[in-house]
Amino acid sequence: MRIGQFQDHSVLGFVDWTLRGVGQVVFQNNPLAGLVILAGLFVNSWIYAMICVLGVVVSTLTAIVLKADKALIREGLFGFNGALVALALIAFTSEDFRTGAVPSVAMTFYLVCAAALTTMAFATIATLLGPHKVAPLTMPFVLVGWLFLFAVLKFDAIEAGPMAKPISPDQFAYDTPYNLNTWYMGIGTSIGQIFFQDNWISGYIILIGIAVNSRIGAAMGLLGAAIGTVVAVLFGGPEGAIRDGLFGYNSALTAIALGGFFLVMNWSSLFYAIFGAIVSAWLWASIAIFLKPIGMPVLTSTFVLVTWIMLIGQYAFKALVPVPPAEATTPEDNRRRYLAGR
Amino acid sequence: MRIGQFQDHSVLGFVDWTLRGVGQVVFQNNPLAGLVILAGLFVNSWIYAMICVLGVVVSTLTAIVLKADKALIREGLFGFNGALVALALIAFTSEDFRTGAVPSVAMTFYLVCAAALTTMAFATIATLLGPHKVAPLTMPFVLVGWLFLFAVLKFDAIEAGPMAKPISPDQFAYDTPYNLNTWYMGIGTSIGQIFFQDNWISGYIILIGIAVNSRIGAAMGLLGAAIGTVVAVLFGGPEGAIRDGLFGYNSALTAIALGGFFLVMNWSSLFYAIFGAIVSAWLWASIAIFLKPIGMPVLTSTFVLVTWIMLIGQYAFKALVPVPPAEATTPEDNRRRYLAGR
Amino acid sequence: MRIGQFQDHSVLGFVDWTLRGVGQVVFQNNPLAGLVILAGLFVNSWIYAMICVLGVVVSTLTAIVLKADKALIREGLFGFNGALVALALIAFTSEDFRTGAVPSVAMTFYLVCAAALTTMAFATIATLLGPHKVAPLTMPFVLVGWLFLFAVLKFDAIEAGPMAKPISPDQFAYDTPYNLNTWYMGIGTSIGQIFFQDNWISGYIILIGIAVNSRIGAAMGLLGAAIGTVVAVLFGGPEGAIRDGLFGYNSALTAIALGGFFLVMNWSSLFYAIFGAIVSAWLWASIAIFLKPIGMPVLTSTFVLVTWIMLIGQYAFKALVPVPPAEATTPEDNRRRYLAGR
Repeated sequence: MRIGQFQDHSVLGFVDWTLRGVGQVVFQNNPLAGLVILAGLFVNSWIYAMICVLGVVVSTLTAIVLKADKALIREGLFGFNGALVALALIAFTSEDFRTGAVPSVAMTFYLVCAAALTTMAFATIATLLGPHKVAPLTMPFVLVGWLFLFAVLKFDAIEAGPMAKPISPDQFAYDTPYNLNTWYMGIGTSIGQIFFQDNWISGYIILIGIAVNSRIGAAMGLLGAAIGTVVAVLFGGPEGAIRDGLFGYNSALTAIALGGFFLVMNWSSLFYAIFGAIVSAWLWASIAIFLKPIGMPVLTSTFVLVTWIMLIGQYAFKALVPVPPAEATTPEDNRRRYLAGR
Repeated sequence: MRIGQFQDHSVLGFVDWTLRGVGQVVFQNNPLAGLVILAGLFVNSWIYAMICVLGVVVSTLTAIVLKADKALIREGLFGFNGALVALALIAFTSEDFRTGAVPSVAMTFYLVCAAALTTMAFATIATLLGPHKVAPLTMPFVLVGWLFLFAVLKFDAIEAGPMAKPISPDQFAYDTPYNLNTWYMGIGTSIGQIFFQDNWISGYIILIGIAVNSRIGAAMGLLGAAIGTVVAVLFGGPEGAIRDGLFGYNSALTAIALGGFFLVMNWSSLFYAIFGAIVSAWLWASIAIFLKPIGMPVLTSTFVLVTWIMLIGQYAFKALVPVPPAEATTPEDNRRRYLAGR
Repeated sequence: MRIGQFQDHSVLGFVDWTLRGVGQVVFQNNPLAGLVILAGLFVNSWIYAMICVLGVVVSTLTAIVLKADKALIREGLFGFNGALVALALIAFTSEDFRTGAVPSVAMTFYLVCAAALTTMAFATIATLLGPHKVAPLTMPFVLVGWLFLFAVLKFDAIEAGPMAKPISPDQFAYDTPYNLNTWYMGIGTSIGQIFFQDNWISGYIILIGIAVNSRIGAAMGLLGAAIGTVVAVLFGGPEGAIRDGLFGYNSALTAIALGGFFLVMNWSSLFYAIFGAIVSAWLWASIAIFLKPIGMPVLTSTFVLVTWIMLIGQYAFKALVPVPPAEATTPEDNRRRYLAGR
């Protein structure tokens, strides 16, 4: 299937762009990848799948109404932060984090505004980082997510669930021993947690969605999740948090970003990505503790912070071969173009 | 009265610049607007009126001593953050927030240094945002205000008042019913709170001050304050906080900034400003909760954050017509120039 | 001794660069200064001296492996943040803050990764500030230090010491009277605290190290430390915190940075540096209180914040004569070049 075949279609075009938006959460500009990922969410909870669609549709529509750059809209770049913020608002205000709950009218209005704001935040962060050729990543989601999650607790019209309290390592017992489940569930759920899916099967389906577009991307995601899990085990993190994928989801994203997507894949960038994944695992714990007194979840802030620290100065290091965001497609393509252009 | 008539005067010039500085808090580069606003403060408390003058004089003088750009000084742009930081330091360290207290010698020295530092912070933030044609807004005040408010509590020589604790929605009862007072007092006090005046009459006088220079500006301020109040009521915010104008002051500023001042007024920017005002009302609550454990007030951080998120990326959206800060005068003028230049 | 004599040596070159790295913590690009400073650490604790060497070696090696700019490496600019982060991690996880403890294997691996990350953070912050001709200062250390200090507390494999709790003014009694010790110990320890040495003799040795390269630099450091101490005494800060040098170390760094190093020394910049030192003393207390609920130490964040606020906008003030970081050598040289070039 040629992946661009619906991108120009008058009606199906919008469907294509929003599916790409779902894929862009994990750097996959591919509608089929987005569809498989949505299926992964659906397996866990139809509510989350619907909410993800709502978020991506709202933020993409906002970009269209504001007359943003057509090319960026068509690549799904205005959609992925909207999808994430919608998922986060439901996840942290629902009685049951695992399945989510259908939002009230007030909550839906609130969530739609949050998703719309991510479109403006994306343009703003892209503007600020533009001169340095670094992408906004999921920072619009993290910023808007934090801002909107907190206010939730102060309005009577919105019921905050028990999970409005953050997921921090302190909530888990330290004396549970590690076992086989820790490993295969921890790694799978790490991928699932990127989309707030506390479900290891969803995680592996999402990984398949990534592989539809890029084998290297999927391999780096798996490697990153595994590194996050290994680091947490070696340094004695609490078993429950590891199995829930909390140490791994930022590591997985960092590994995908640095491992071939924003840096041409070679030995240097592979080691760089592994280093980033290790650091992300530690710093998830760090940011979780930092946010504890104010009761906010980490979201993907660790991934953004580590990746920015490691990428904004990229042109200072001649051992790395940067790929500007506007040219980043897949690790495979990035490397092919680089080798051809040398 | 020609508003520029004293700007070049050798002695009265400085008076003109500082009055413009008072007006610039609400984007009014007009000495008469500044004078009416000062009268609004005086009606509430002569102490606050004097402190406001002290702050604007110190930060304007600092700019003169450091040989800053004459044009910016003459427009009052180095003064408004100094006025606000002086007001905030008195408001949050006085026994009675409403009237303020005459500061001690140690406190006066402290306050003068804080006002002077806002001048440097203004130059720094203007430098950072320069390439993106976005103004520092009241960020110098927010930054310096937070930094200086906290240290206050640690020095024996400065007596911190009971209001050194932040104004957060939690301090108000949730079961008080809304009534007519909630509305006209809430909206008026929202304008007053921009200058830390917990007085609805002062608020309406300040609104008149704005109207002296720009009807659209005053209308947007009123609209923003009303939106903040409506949103808080619809979402069930605590009555006391709404009546005290706490949900509305950031909304009012956001509406003035986006509604014709930094964006040419048209249907798009009107909706954009309304959206910003709604979001500002929610996010005041959010930042208040964020700051609660560290005991800091929100100040106008919500307004700055929302306006920056919505403006820095402005050139990405062709539905908006940006007005660079150096050219922004009044909504009326901005629109006239734009229509003439098309 | 010609200070550049080993800089090009094939083997001793690396030693020269790392000693310069130690000196760069206090802006001294001079291996002999670095050596004297290391001696100052050794007098207090051989463990800290070794850890300082480990940190500077790791971050300098990381820069070499990543093929960073040779000139920056040779000036020790990739080393000083690594030295500081290594010292901080030991200081805040050791049973005894004063002497430090030999780290475990897990801690050593952790510390090495943190030091390596400062190299990337340095490149990133230098990139962001590049257009404004302002240096990253010790921000890479502050950022990475905070991130790594926190996670420490969450892993069983790393033992956190009692000092993992922050040094905040609240930990000290307010009723202890000031005496002669407060003064000479407070000022000396202020210099020592820059390197986490709670030892006033170390502080004065470090000052000698600075004087080896620049008399003005040493004088400004002493002046800054004295100002920090005086301000804390006048405003009634707790005696224990003053004697431990906590109010003075940020003031000392700010005074060195603004007093001749990044601004040509003249009456304006002298007053500017004094103002900065006063503000830094207050704001150390402010940031300490800000960080208290999350249990993090201030590190040198106050120095970075105040210096950035006062320098990034420097070109807006014609009363100041900026020295771009790439040309800043010593206050003496900066002034000589400026007077020659007029």
